[in-house]
Amino acid sequence: MTAETERVMSGEVKTDGLPLNPLRTAAGPEPELLCIFGTGDLGRSLGQRLLQTGYRVVYGSRRPHSCGPVPQGAQVQSTASSGTLHFYFIFLVLVDVSNNLKKNLYPEANAEYLQRLIPGAFVVKAFNTLSAWALQNGPSDANRQVFLCGDSAEAKQQVSDVATRLSFSVVDRGSLSAARELEDFPLQLFPEWRLPLWIATGLTASFFFYAVIVDIVYSYQSILCFSPIIQVFPIVSLIMLSLCYLPGVLASFFQLYRGTKYRRFPDWLDRWMLCRKQLGLLALGFASLHVLYTLLIPIRYFVPLFTLCHYQIRENKTVDFETSTAWYTDSYYSMGILGFGLYVILGISSLPSVSNALSWREFNFIQVGIFMCARFSLSAHSW
Amino acid sequence: MTAETERVMSGEVKTDGLPLNPLRTAAGPEPELLCIFGTGDLGRSLGQRLLQTGYRVVYGSRRPHSCGPVPQGAQVQSTASSGTLHFYFIFLVLVDVSNNLKKNLYPEANAEYLQRLIPGAFVVKAFNTLSAWALQNGPSDANRQVFLCGDSAEAKQQVSDVATRLSFSVVDRGSLSAARELEDFPLQLFPEWRLPLWIATGLTASFFFYAVIVDIVYSYQSILCFSPIIQVFPIVSLIMLSLCYLPGVLASFFQLYRGTKYRRFPDWLDRWMLCRKQLGLLALGFASLHVLYTLLIPIRYFVPLFTLCHYQIRENKTVDFETSTAWYTDSYYSMGILGFGLYVILGISSLPSVSNALSWREFNFIQVGIFMCARFSLSAHSW
Amino acid sequence: MTAETERVMSGEVKTDGLPLNPLRTAAGPEPELLCIFGTGDLGRSLGQRLLQTGYRVVYGSRRPHSCGPVPQGAQVQSTASSGTLHFYFIFLVLVDVSNNLKKNLYPEANAEYLQRLIPGAFVVKAFNTLSAWALQNGPSDANRQVFLCGDSAEAKQQVSDVATRLSFSVVDRGSLSAARELEDFPLQLFPEWRLPLWIATGLTASFFFYAVIVDIVYSYQSILCFSPIIQVFPIVSLIMLSLCYLPGVLASFFQLYRGTKYRRFPDWLDRWMLCRKQLGLLALGFASLHVLYTLLIPIRYFVPLFTLCHYQIRENKTVDFETSTAWYTDSYYSMGILGFGLYVILGISSLPSVSNALSWREFNFIQVGIFMCARFSLSAHSW
Repeated sequence: MTAETERVMSGEVKTDGLPLNPLRTAAGPEPELLCIFGTGDLGRSLGQRLLQTGYRVVYGSRRPHSCGPVPQGAQVQSTASSGTLHFYFIFLVLVDVSNNLKKNLYPEANAEYLQRLIPGAFVVKAFNTLSAWALQNGPSDANRQVFLCGDSAEAKQQVSDVATRLSFSVVDRGSLSAARELEDFPLQLFPEWRLPLWIATGLTASFFFYAVIVDIVYSYQSILCFSPIIQVFPIVSLIMLSLCYLPGVLASFFQLYRGTKYRRFPDWLDRWMLCRKQLGLLALGFASLHVLYTLLIPIRYFVPLFTLCHYQIRENKTVDFETSTAWYTDSYYSMGILGFGLYVILGISSLPSVSNALSWREFNFIQVGIFMCARFSLSAHSW
Repeated sequence: MTAETERVMSGEVKTDGLPLNPLRTAAGPEPELLCIFGTGDLGRSLGQRLLQTGYRVVYGSRRPHSCGPVPQGAQVQSTASSGTLHFYFIFLVLVDVSNNLKKNLYPEANAEYLQRLIPGAFVVKAFNTLSAWALQNGPSDANRQVFLCGDSAEAKQQVSDVATRLSFSVVDRGSLSAARELEDFPLQLFPEWRLPLWIATGLTASFFFYAVIVDIVYSYQSILCFSPIIQVFPIVSLIMLSLCYLPGVLASFFQLYRGTKYRRFPDWLDRWMLCRKQLGLLALGFASLHVLYTLLIPIRYFVPLFTLCHYQIRENKTVDFETSTAWYTDSYYSMGILGFGLYVILGISSLPSVSNALSWREFNFIQVGIFMCARFSLSAHSW
Repeated sequence: MTAETERVMSGEVKTDGLPLNPLRTAAGPEPELLCIFGTGDLGRSLGQRLLQTGYRVVYGSRRPHSCGPVPQGAQVQSTASSGTLHFYFIFLVLVDVSNNLKKNLYPEANAEYLQRLIPGAFVVKAFNTLSAWALQNGPSDANRQVFLCGDSAEAKQQVSDVATRLSFSVVDRGSLSAARELEDFPLQLFPEWRLPLWIATGLTASFFFYAVIVDIVYSYQSILCFSPIIQVFPIVSLIMLSLCYLPGVLASFFQLYRGTKYRRFPDWLDRWMLCRKQLGLLALGFASLHVLYTLLIPIRYFVPLFTLCHYQIRENKTVDFETSTAWYTDSYYSMGILGFGLYVILGISSLPSVSNALSWREFNFIQVGIFMCARFSLSAHSW
């Protein structure tokens, strides 16, 4: 039984209809009882941490004598007897922490299936997005939030109390119909980054081979060895910036053509619009590489050999200064720097905490206004 | 009727005083009924999404036969009859999603006005900070949070349930007196950035024209064509850094002079103190531009013409190395890099998610301690 | 009485068992009464802000005639009489805002002590992480969140209502046993950064002195004056990157050796594993300094004196171009840029808001996969 397939259920004992908290305050140190079904990685880690926080823990196991070591202080019962325990519960909360091994394995979410099996219980989906390590050692970076969902507000409140006592922060995701989404969450690996990454890889590869063929094979310039790579970065960055901008134009065109805003876009356009942010961030990444490589030019080995200075020594003549060329190159660099600066502002505004703090109008202003300025500067820079 | 002026009201039917959630769990798939008054952009988008999530939706319209297409599955009633529906509700929750076209249009907030009109209802202000697009297509960057406020905790809980089922995250902003703030939120466009941006623009313009006059007009150095811009950036950056630091000193002076901490500062000082963060971030932006332009120096077209090397060729003599000059320029660059690094740390600490994770003492340490070090290094660098 | 030691208690009057909010809605503008015990900085600031928000405030003071100015509109009573006020309260909520002057001053948390003294009251720990300035002037950067904990859900809800009306955002940290953690929060000053900073300082100092002795003292190269510092940065960065990676390997070794995952690691390994993130961020900082210094090389004063160009003039001979050297240096720079780029992605993913948005699997992928690529590129770069 692995961490992905086991189920942990917790039933909190409530002797009668009185509210729980005043009772706890009055009676003082009487710890609450939680039952965990299954003694796998996740069950053991959760139990250990619950014991440390001051709960009483009982494990339910189908093989209580061969289930391996449970945390000290917990009891183990066979599932048969612990199953009969249910009948003593007046208000039964079942916390489903299960995950599937892959997406769409079962027709319905595990938590919904559990709810259908035991209609009298209050099923809450929770803790499944955490790793066993985080459950045992407390919250850390990506294991700080407990997402929960369920149909009973009171059951969610009780699970939320347990989670906050384990010092996790709770994010309520609504009714049990959100369970499938929560079960898919730990399985996903950057789904919205895949398409942009494929596009970026494809573009980089094709432009790279084109540059290799034109620059090196045909002109025998083997000396500027990684200049093909350097040339590719700004091109790919600009193309991805356009790909970021194009679906909005296409969408407006569709809406005008159809005469309504209330029909869905075709699927490919929908997918494209949803990965605009990732396309933009990849474009920013390529632009940063371009900036770094450009700044590195003067310290590359062969550059002094090709500078004016070297040329003048070899040819033994002096090149005169041309104002127009100076103006041209300097405007060129300035446009590049301006565009890159605006680009970085766009990148910062897409950080979750920054975009949460902006109103919708402000976010739009940045994404449209600054985006247009960045596009204009970078087009001027590339031209 | 635009998205800014319509009102959407949702009344949830509750047949008697029993709690809602256990009922829903028991009765299973009976969907809740929500009424939306008004069939504008916002109303249609919200209705479509509510229908997709499994609610029943009834539209109330003053012109039910000419109100344009409503989402499939929703009914339309004329407001007269849907108005009489109210009397069947025992617990009426009204969600006010209205926005104004400009600030201070009406003497009181729309939600407070609505509450005054229908004293028996429970008015909750919500969803008004979202765009119609986000309501239809689900949460995205700046449209992830639903701010709500209202006087009844239970009504807020119900609206919050609806919002979490639409997969938004809910931020409770307290009682209905916060409604004006929420109604002003979608109208604002970086209010606290305006003053700093004007200051930055003014400073840049004046120093730029001064540099143009001194460097180019008077000394005929037309060749270093964009060097005036480059010179301006570090100066503006340092002045804005001082403007960031000055109001704290002035405030302490006021407090000492008045002998009490409990009187408000004059208005101009208050405004100044509130935009210190923005002043600092703009100063960081100017410093970054200065760094980028400095690093670009060696690849600018005319630089090789003015280097020592070129000078030596033309004059045909060798310049000797001076240790003191090397020490001076290297300390100068080091101070600049150190100051810029500390500056970037200050910038990172002002990201919302980072400053939320810091305790007050830690934030103070960064803002005062590191700020002082950055100021010192940059002063040494500029001197 | 300083802000750190005073206690503020608020008792909300509820005449009978009816829920509070419908009553407030019905009765309209009757403001709630809050009592604050103590007239120090924190008490006065809180009182002033509560008065502005529309509450009635009564101060309880042991010396009502010599307690200094209280905000206009508030009353002051001697603690004797306000102490007797308690008996009129049916539901008494005590908000403990106290902080200690240093950690572990008392055997139990102040809030738990208060709860033990007045068992009938509902103690809630809140507001203690805020500065008096933020309480008076409203939320700002690090003073936006009110952490609260307590055993009674209803009492927490009421304090949470007060806090949201003061426009703070509330973070529930569970039961009163979390009070000690909240009381330690304002006292801490980057506890998890200390060890990494000491390690970084020690490493930098020792490599710096080693470089000074080898490069300058023994070879009399006083001219390259700050090159020892520049050499030290990449070395320290790589060592800290390894220190970031090593504890994971050691932990796996311990687990294999012991044959179980459920025993705690030794204390030093635990501490080491908890500061891996800080070690990584410091390594990123040193790498950034290395990049900036490298990019500055060509504009340093003495560099033109030592370039090929200069060498050729002095020696009056031409150096020929070698393809293999060009390939070598260019791959060297490319590896460095690639590694640095991956490094920056690691740094961005450790921002709290970004890591919160990632699932556990995605975070692991970045921390392990990208970390390995970065390590590989940087090792190739340094080799």
